[in-house]
Formats: sequence, structure tokens, C-alpha cells
Amino acid sequence: MTSLKYGIAVRIAFIWLWVSACQPQQTQQATEEALWTQANQLFKPLNTTPASPAENPTTPEKVALGKMLFHEPRLSQSGRISCSSCHNLSLYGVDARATSLGHNAQTGKRNAPTVFNASLHFAQFWDGRATDLETQAAGPILNPVEMAMESEPVAAERLQGIPAYRSAFERVFPNRDPAVSYLHITQAIAAFERTLLTPAPFDAYLTGDKDRLSPAEKEGLRTYIRYGCTACHNGMGVGGNLYQKFGVVNPYPHAQDTGRFEVTQNPEDKYVFKVPSLRNVARTAPYFHDGKVWDLEEAITIMAKTQLGKDMPPEDAQKIAAFLNTLTGNIPQTALERPILPPPHPATASEAP
Amino acid sequence: MTSLKYGIAVRIAFIWLWVSACQPQQTQQATEEALWTQANQLFKPLNTTPASPAENPTTPEKVALGKMLFHEPRLSQSGRISCSSCHNLSLYGVDARATSLGHNAQTGKRNAPTVFNASLHFAQFWDGRATDLETQAAGPILNPVEMAMESEPVAAERLQGIPAYRSAFERVFPNRDPAVSYLHITQAIAAFERTLLTPAPFDAYLTGDKDRLSPAEKEGLRTYIRYGCTACHNGMGVGGNLYQKFGVVNPYPHAQDTGRFEVTQNPEDKYVFKVPSLRNVARTAPYFHDGKVWDLEEAITIMAKTQLGKDMPPEDAQKIAAFLNTLTGNIPQTALERPILPPPHPATASEAP
Repeated sequence: MTSLKYGIAVRIAFIWLWVSACQPQQTQQATEEALWTQANQLFKPLNTTPASPAENPTTPEKVALGKMLFHEPRLSQSGRISCSSCHNLSLYGVDARATSLGHNAQTGKRNAPTVFNASLHFAQFWDGRATDLETQAAGPILNPVEMAMESEPVAAERLQGIPAYRSAFERVFPNRDPAVSYLHITQAIAAFERTLLTPAPFDAYLTGDKDRLSPAEKEGLRTYIRYGCTACHNGMGVGGNLYQKFGVVNPYPHAQDTGRFEVTQNPEDKYVFKVPSLRNVARTAPYFHDGKVWDLEEAITIMAKTQLGKDMPPEDAQKIAAFLNTLTGNIPQTALERPILPPPHPATASEAP
Repeated sequence: MTSLKYGIAVRIAFIWLWVSACQPQQTQQATEEALWTQANQLFKPLNTTPASPAENPTTPEKVALGKMLFHEPRLSQSGRISCSSCHNLSLYGVDARATSLGHNAQTGKRNAPTVFNASLHFAQFWDGRATDLETQAAGPILNPVEMAMESEPVAAERLQGIPAYRSAFERVFPNRDPAVSYLHITQAIAAFERTLLTPAPFDAYLTGDKDRLSPAEKEGLRTYIRYGCTACHNGMGVGGNLYQKFGVVNPYPHAQDTGRFEVTQNPEDKYVFKVPSLRNVARTAPYFHDGKVWDLEEAITIMAKTQLGKDMPPEDAQKIAAFLNTLTGNIPQTALERPILPPPHPATASEAP
């Protein structure tokens, strides 16, 4: 009987050991599963191409024309500044400056946001003053401190004077008179910009490739959610879908620009900005509407203080930065191949600075 | 017998007709053959890659680094002007302006020549003041009206501050201390530029594809040779291999710039310039060292007057332009694909205009 009791005791001990050994693993799996489920509630993977608006349907020919126009310096008064000057696709759609250099070496007051994934935003510009990509594209070409083109008709006339553009516009906008118009310029540019999507490792994770994020990156995601960053930076754009005051809890140390107040004149909109998308954020320093901060972890720490009222220890900022790096996506082939632009033409001669 | 005589007469008539019909064709063939032989004596097809210099051997890694640096706006004081700003590869290596816009919206006094096929030139710059591509590349980065970098060490320091560049230079220039140096920057850029060759239909013609030129283009080539344009614009570069006074016979109407005289102070070098290559000339208006002329046929007519003392009728300028169009080549794949540049970094923060 002793040996029987002994045998039972040994078996119980073994079972106990086996259960103990498995439990942490099961718990960890359950935790990982919960994180993934939670992430899918807060974010949406970038695995589809958002539809183009009915009034500006995307076609391959329009995208090709828009790509030429996006890179076309002759759309500026000086003939030297294109959309791509400040939204440099080799630099993930930014210019690596606090504020951009435009016509006659003037600077704007806000940091150039990336064009990548801009189609996911609910409004355009830092203050949301344009509702869509078409309206946005119309802005900088005429802005006197940016591309400084004299007027809409002058911009259209310049392209009209270049035979290759004339025929391209006629192909892309058939039976429209005139084919070369300022509206069509902005429509073609917007159609190109809708192709500038950068799916990232985080999207692969969200769609089910759960090992695509490393343990450190998952810990970063957990920290990001725990702090409440997801209150604003959520959805497919990981931001870009609401306005928020910069300085909800504590004021932003460099606060000057009143943001959306300039558009609405509503005192409640003072220091309110569009929440930027965090896609490719590790590639698009310097940060914030004024480009004052170059370091990602410093930016995270400032956000925790100003928006969430929390003093974030450096190790948490590091963890969150690790997660944000998983939002760096692949630049699509269409953006990697440069367009060939029509030859120089007297119609575009410019001696402007 | 009458029928026999009749038969003979008919046969003779047929032979006569056949010979008459063939003769022009044979004559034309002989003329075409002579043109092709003559062309091969005057020009060389661009069907080989010129060797790289012993002190700067081309490697794929060096070309890739050079391509990044060629497109790198952070090599300028403002962080916004790169080699590609004025040598825009989408515009066949030029900027479609008379003179380029540089630092703080300053303009230089000479037209930006294309970088395509520049390695074929016997000297660099309009006045030949640089002997090779390496020395050329060193110029604009420091030129106060171009990229305006403060000094050679400042340029190297900036790149040294960007981790991705530091490791790229260490890979490309192993066992060299420091790996990131101004010399290495210019060597990498030159290595990239040596890949910028654009074989054209005329090269296919020269190497034996004799139908590659249309009859009108061959007539243009004949006219080009007949006028004596080949005295200067010959060889593989169709120019780019000697100096010549601009205004040998009659003065250039816009003459101001004394050209090579500025380099040598030799009175015989007044108004002397490097003869530019005519490869891609139909793509690289405006013309001449001052970029004063936008129309190719007008440029041809001016050359006939100033260099050859001939009043060229418009139809001959048209013919020559048809030939010059066969020098428009294909942009190589390496130039069509944009590089991805390292992320923005505090080391490169600039608020310069």
C-alpha cells in the first residue's frame, strides 16, 4: 500500500509540476490574444485602397499625369519648386526641416506633413482647412510663400503651353473644355496621392501575422494603449481622424500658433490641430505643427505631459517608440519610380527667384 | 524575222527599263553607305561604359551611396538643395531655367548643364575648370550661391551625424579613416554620375542598325556634316572634347561672359567655352552657357552664324534639329529609381534660407 500511495503522490506531483509549468505560457498566450483583439478594436489594418471620390475617379492615366504634376517644378513661379520639393518621396514625403523653404527662400510657419497616407485623413492641412486632397493640392501652388504661382489661369496656361501636357490632359479628361484647367491639375495630383499608401509591419500584425511584432514591440503597443494614446491616435491612420487641442491638460511648451482658431475664429478652437497620423512617424521628424522637436522619444514624452497629464519615464517613451517604428511602411513602387517630365519649353521660361 | 527583231527590241527595252529603275536605288544605297561610313569616322557609338579612374574605382555600393548623396538636400546649408535640384533627372539632368536658383534664392550666371553623359567630357563646367567628375562635384556643394555648405568639414560632419550614412561610408570606403570625408562624398557622387549614360537611336545607327534613322533624320545628319558642325561636335559625346571660342566668325549676340578667360587670364581664352555635348540636346533647353535661347532651331541658326559664318535657311535648321533629336537617349534604370534617404536627424537641423 505504501508503494501505491507513493506512486499516487509522485503522479500528483508530476501533474502539479506540469500544470504549473504550462500556466504562465497559457496566460501569456491569452494576454497576447487579448492584446491583438484589443488592437483590432482600436485600429484598422491598411490593407485596402480607399475609394476615390465620385467626382474624381482614379484611373491609371490620371495617376501617371498626377505623378508628373507632383514632381513638376514648372508649377511654381520660379520653375524650381514642385510639390515634391517639400514632400520629398525619398524622405518619406517630408523635407527634414522645421518649416519648409518656398518662393524666394521664404519659410512657412508650419511643418510640412508627409503626403504618404494623406488620403486616410478626414481633413487636410494641420488646421483641416481643406476637406479633401483635391482642395489641399490647390493651396500650395498659389500660396505666395510656397510655389507662388500668380493665379489659377496662369498655372493652367503654363501647362497648356507644353505640348506633352496638353495631350496628356486631353487623354485623361476627354470631352472637357478646357482639358488643361486648375481643377484638373488638382484632381490629377490628388489621384496620384491616393496611391501613396504604405502598409507596415503593424498592418501585417493586425491582419493575423501575430509574430510580425517582436515582444518589445508588443510591449510598446501595450504601453501605448495603457497610457491612452489611442484616445486620439487610432483607426486606419493611427490618427488623422479628429481635431484636438494641443495642450489639453498642460500647455505645449512652444505654443504660439493658434491652429484651427485661424480658420474658424471660434475661441474653443485655439491651439486646436488635426491629430496627425502616426504612420511613418519614425521617418518624418521634426515633430509637431511647428517642427520644433527632432527626437521621437522627446515628442512622445511631451505628448504624455500635454495631452494626458502624465510624467512619462524614459523607459516607457522608449517602449512606445519601439511600437511606433512598426508603423514605418513600404514606399509603393509607383512612388519609387521617377516620372520623365516634358522637355523645357519657352512657355515655362522663368527668371523669378 | 520581224518577230525575232521585235522580241530582241522588247528584251533590250526591258533591260534598259530595269537598269534605269535600279540605278537610283543603287546610287541611293551607295550614298547611304557613304553617309554611315562617314558618320562612323566622325562619331563613336555610346555602347561601352567608360572606365572609372584608378583612384576611384566604381563599385555597386559606391554607386548606390553616390545616388543617395546626389539626391541629398542635407548636403546644402539650407537642407533643401541637392545636386538633383538643378540637375533634375526627371528633366534629363537640367532644371529648365536659364540660370539655376541656389542658396537664399540666388542665381548663378551660367546654365546648369545636364549630368547625363558628363563622364564623356574631357573637362567639367562650361569653362573646364574641373578636370574630372570628382573635382566638379566638390564645387557646387560649397559654392555660396549654390548649395552654400560652410566648409568641407561641415559637410562631412553633417553626414557623419546620420547613422545610416556613417555605416554606408564605412562599407564603401573600408579601412579609411575617416570614412566620411569630403573627398569620399565627391568620389561617391562621381561614381554614380558615371552610370548616367543615355544610348540613343543614333548609337544604334552607328553600330549598324542603319534603318534606325528615318530618311529625314539621315538628311539632317548629312546637313549637319555638310555645314561643318562636326568640326567641334564630334566623337562619342557629339561634343564635350575641346574648347572653342563662342563667336569664332561672328560675335554671339548676347556675349558678356568671358568664359575660360576667367580661369586662365589668357586673353586668347576670352569667350572660350567647352564645346557642350549635344546628347539629349532636344531635352535640355534653354541653350548656351547663359541659357538665353529656348528654341533648338534658333540655337542651330545662331551657331551657324557665329561659328561657321553662314546664314542658315530655316529648312536646314529644321533638318539638323531632326538629326539632333536622334541623340535623345534612354534614361538608365538606376536613374529612374529614386533612392530612399536616411530619416531626418537633429544633426541636420537647419533653418537657413
